[in-house]
Amino acid sequence: MPPLRLTPTLFNRFLASSRPRHLRPTRLLRCSAAQARWSSATTEPHQPDADGGTQGAPSSQKQIKYTSESYPEITRDPKFSELSEKHVQFFKELLGAGSAVIDGVSQDAADDLEPFNSDWMRKYKGHTKLVVKPGSTEDVSKVLKYCNDNMLAVVPQGGNSGLVGGSVPVFDEIVINMSRMNTIRDFDEVSGTLVVDAGCILEVADHFLAEMDHIFPLDLGAKGSCHIGGNVATNAGGLRLLRYGSLHGNVLGIEAVLPDGTVMDDLSRLRKNNTGFDIKQLFIGGEGTIGIITGVSIQCPQRSKATNVAFFGLESFEKVQQAFRDAKKQLSEILSAFELMDGQSQDLVHRVTDKKRPLEGQHPFYCLIETSGSNPDHDSEKLEAFLEHVMGEEIVSDGVLAQDETQIQSLWSWREGIPECLGHWGGVYKYDLSIPLPELYKLVEDTRERLTLAGLVGDDEKHPVVGVVGYGHMGDSNLHLNVATRRFDKEVEKQLEPFIYEWIAKRNGSISAEHGLGLAKKAYIGYSRSETMIRLMKQIKELYDPNGIMNPYKYI
Amino acid sequence: MPPLRLTPTLFNRFLASSRPRHLRPTRLLRCSAAQARWSSATTEPHQPDADGGTQGAPSSQKQIKYTSESYPEITRDPKFSELSEKHVQFFKELLGAGSAVIDGVSQDAADDLEPFNSDWMRKYKGHTKLVVKPGSTEDVSKVLKYCNDNMLAVVPQGGNSGLVGGSVPVFDEIVINMSRMNTIRDFDEVSGTLVVDAGCILEVADHFLAEMDHIFPLDLGAKGSCHIGGNVATNAGGLRLLRYGSLHGNVLGIEAVLPDGTVMDDLSRLRKNNTGFDIKQLFIGGEGTIGIITGVSIQCPQRSKATNVAFFGLESFEKVQQAFRDAKKQLSEILSAFELMDGQSQDLVHRVTDKKRPLEGQHPFYCLIETSGSNPDHDSEKLEAFLEHVMGEEIVSDGVLAQDETQIQSLWSWREGIPECLGHWGGVYKYDLSIPLPELYKLVEDTRERLTLAGLVGDDEKHPVVGVVGYGHMGDSNLHLNVATRRFDKEVEKQLEPFIYEWIAKRNGSISAEHGLGLAKKAYIGYSRSETMIRLMKQIKELYDPNGIMNPYKYI
Repeated sequence: MPPLRLTPTLFNRFLASSRPRHLRPTRLLRCSAAQARWSSATTEPHQPDADGGTQGAPSSQKQIKYTSESYPEITRDPKFSELSEKHVQFFKELLGAGSAVIDGVSQDAADDLEPFNSDWMRKYKGHTKLVVKPGSTEDVSKVLKYCNDNMLAVVPQGGNSGLVGGSVPVFDEIVINMSRMNTIRDFDEVSGTLVVDAGCILEVADHFLAEMDHIFPLDLGAKGSCHIGGNVATNAGGLRLLRYGSLHGNVLGIEAVLPDGTVMDDLSRLRKNNTGFDIKQLFIGGEGTIGIITGVSIQCPQRSKATNVAFFGLESFEKVQQAFRDAKKQLSEILSAFELMDGQSQDLVHRVTDKKRPLEGQHPFYCLIETSGSNPDHDSEKLEAFLEHVMGEEIVSDGVLAQDETQIQSLWSWREGIPECLGHWGGVYKYDLSIPLPELYKLVEDTRERLTLAGLVGDDEKHPVVGVVGYGHMGDSNLHLNVATRRFDKEVEKQLEPFIYEWIAKRNGSISAEHGLGLAKKAYIGYSRSETMIRLMKQIKELYDPNGIMNPYKYI
Repeated sequence: MPPLRLTPTLFNRFLASSRPRHLRPTRLLRCSAAQARWSSATTEPHQPDADGGTQGAPSSQKQIKYTSESYPEITRDPKFSELSEKHVQFFKELLGAGSAVIDGVSQDAADDLEPFNSDWMRKYKGHTKLVVKPGSTEDVSKVLKYCNDNMLAVVPQGGNSGLVGGSVPVFDEIVINMSRMNTIRDFDEVSGTLVVDAGCILEVADHFLAEMDHIFPLDLGAKGSCHIGGNVATNAGGLRLLRYGSLHGNVLGIEAVLPDGTVMDDLSRLRKNNTGFDIKQLFIGGEGTIGIITGVSIQCPQRSKATNVAFFGLESFEKVQQAFRDAKKQLSEILSAFELMDGQSQDLVHRVTDKKRPLEGQHPFYCLIETSGSNPDHDSEKLEAFLEHVMGEEIVSDGVLAQDETQIQSLWSWREGIPECLGHWGGVYKYDLSIPLPELYKLVEDTRERLTLAGLVGDDEKHPVVGVVGYGHMGDSNLHLNVATRRFDKEVEKQLEPFIYEWIAKRNGSISAEHGLGLAKKAYIGYSRSETMIRLMKQIKELYDPNGIMNPYKYI
């Protein structure tokens, strides 16, 4: 059965048709972990190579360049000690000589170290000679205290699925990998409070919660490998933010270890606790620069019984905004996603995949709307009323409604397939931005115009740029601006930067909506934060990590 | 029309009756501001008098005792300068000689200063000689810088509706009252982002949002007078937390002034912004001890079209937990309140008001459930299915469903009337606590048993204690434990403290769920926070306010 088409002529049929078009998947299955990783990966701004070019999509063939070569301006801080066998001995005595310590100091262990030294995008590569895997908070405390006392720099590492080079070393920092701390500590079904070790994999927790009829309030492509501790340390946004809000609201408690070995025992399970400064918030999005999160307590909502997905074509960004406003109003408590894709992004997906488009004809804008609720009939009714409204008022030009889970996945693929398809021609310049909603799409238009005026966009090999597209999480004001190119080109780069950052700065937007700063955006924070804010942040860093051993060369 | 009764015999009739029992008030009107203030006031633990007794309910007849007399152990810190006419001159030149400065230094202004020196509960009273009312963030900056440079202590003051003595001076601290900064700066209808001056009154903002079909994500009794800046500074919880979450999740940006005059310009309007430490979080619940909030940006949800209220009797706390679990599951996205009242609390309300009880017979526990949603019919259907379930499974013993807004208010009065009614016999010992849900009610039982065994509870004048009751925000794990007494009594006090604080500490609960620390709970923080956490908090205070001029003698 094809998805239910909602063209004006068929609209009455849609409304008259029988009720049970709702769907009852217990949860939405999207693309595979591998695909999702791709999409996440390519929402990342490009990184300059050492030779001034830019790296494109990850390639497993290619040798990974050392970060120290790509960023020659970053030099190893001589204040840090060089690792010695004596140091390694300490860690072996503490953690055992088994797999909890990967020792590249007293022996050659390059192959074993490789996965901890480089990121999965194959963009960043460090020179570490030592990986330690603590098995308890106490272990972490002893490891950090020793490192701090001995001026040994460290990199906290979770699932190593980050997008900004934050979780791999630059030079010889010791990797503190949290994978051994992966226990679900407890769950209270009445309050929905889950307590986990930081190294617990997001998907493991979500599967556990599914059996308890709850969900983790965060979902993202890398769920199969990312650690909850890493999610919290990077304040991951993801797919459920529109509905369930950010980790700053959902995380109830954090257990973390400070560089001097102090255990910050703030693992509250309480929704309300107004007894002093909420210091744990500094660790949410702190990117492992002031301590290592070892435990997380988080409130988890009830799992929804029903999921519906609709896909629309619209004629202008004004109509998109109107549709979003009306969706918030009419779908209100069941709205769980409102995604934007522009016409050019869908054209390019179509050119690459050659799949049948969900809608006939072409439209300047497309939206994907998802609802999740506790009563399938009610959700369908609300969605129908909404569809009737947006079609009747001609807010949307055309639309389809998924009839089953396969169709849900198919519609999502037109949104989630964008990043991968854009890489088809060569490299992609990518920006992950927060912009006040009314101006969200203007950046795409301005950038497209700018590149076109510069004579860089065209259909033949002479022109480096294939297209300038915009898509993203409309519901979170989060735009992915992507410039698909045939090759990385200095001219294109000069047109894009600092133009885009300046454009964002003028509108008080964010140069990193959800991926964090890491190594990639450290240099650009000034476009999103004032000198005052940066100074205050540096104060915090200095307060907690006066020796600067935590994740050096990154963040602020 | 009486509320629809749901006794088992009438249950079928309820289910068979016609649909439109839903209600369409645009928002729920509860008790008047005056009443609400009462209820808020009396959710506060008692304060010891200087003579070791305790103060009861606010009394406008009674002269307010100076805090310096009630707490003789607190002495004025001699490091702070004494106010001089020269100082006052500076403020007059800065803010004008009009009503923006109340000068009790160069003239007698005791009457004018009185409302700023004392709290509305008439529990705390300071000795200030100067109130300044800045009109802009720049004013606040200049005022604070001057105070910091001249070692003049200050108290930031919003609507002065706090419950822990945090917003009035203890000695001669200068009151910086924010009431002149009361503008709604802007609202974006598409994203629902509201930006206001800190001195904007909560109800004013909520009325403004009502016209825009949105609501402020926070609601509380003092809404008619409290400032949004004060709400944020105290991390107010209130009635909407179960549904919309805490201010740590909803506040998008804060503009604040640090003691040295630095303007922290972090007034982001973005839902996602991962560019460095989220420093504004320290100001949420910071109680004016590290700076003064001057502006707030907050995300506001769509306003619900329908509100329903049901009221149940249940036979045990296990059944209450089961009802809550099932309400979360079945009412899910429309559940907006789940309030608990024990049988004794309702008996006492009945004895005082002599109003007809909502349910026939008596029950050990009562619950009030509120739903809010976008579709009245759907909400009613969900609520009916839920009622069918909890009645059919005998989870609840009896129930009524409000048929109109008057009945909604009437049912709420059995919950919101508790604090006022408990004061009927004399004084009330009150505790506002967070406790992990499974053990939430056990504290009431343990306390009741303890006082009974001590021979303190009885029906005649010989016994000081009238009753030990528990009620509160079940959905937030927030218990109000109240001991209604005929008189304040040393023996009762000895049985209650430190017993209750120790009981809370053992279960990792919170001694202040939503009211904050202020002066009242400064001494007790150790029961909810470890020495490590308190040390880390003091570090933060020292970092931002090295001279200690901000709201001294309070918080940590």
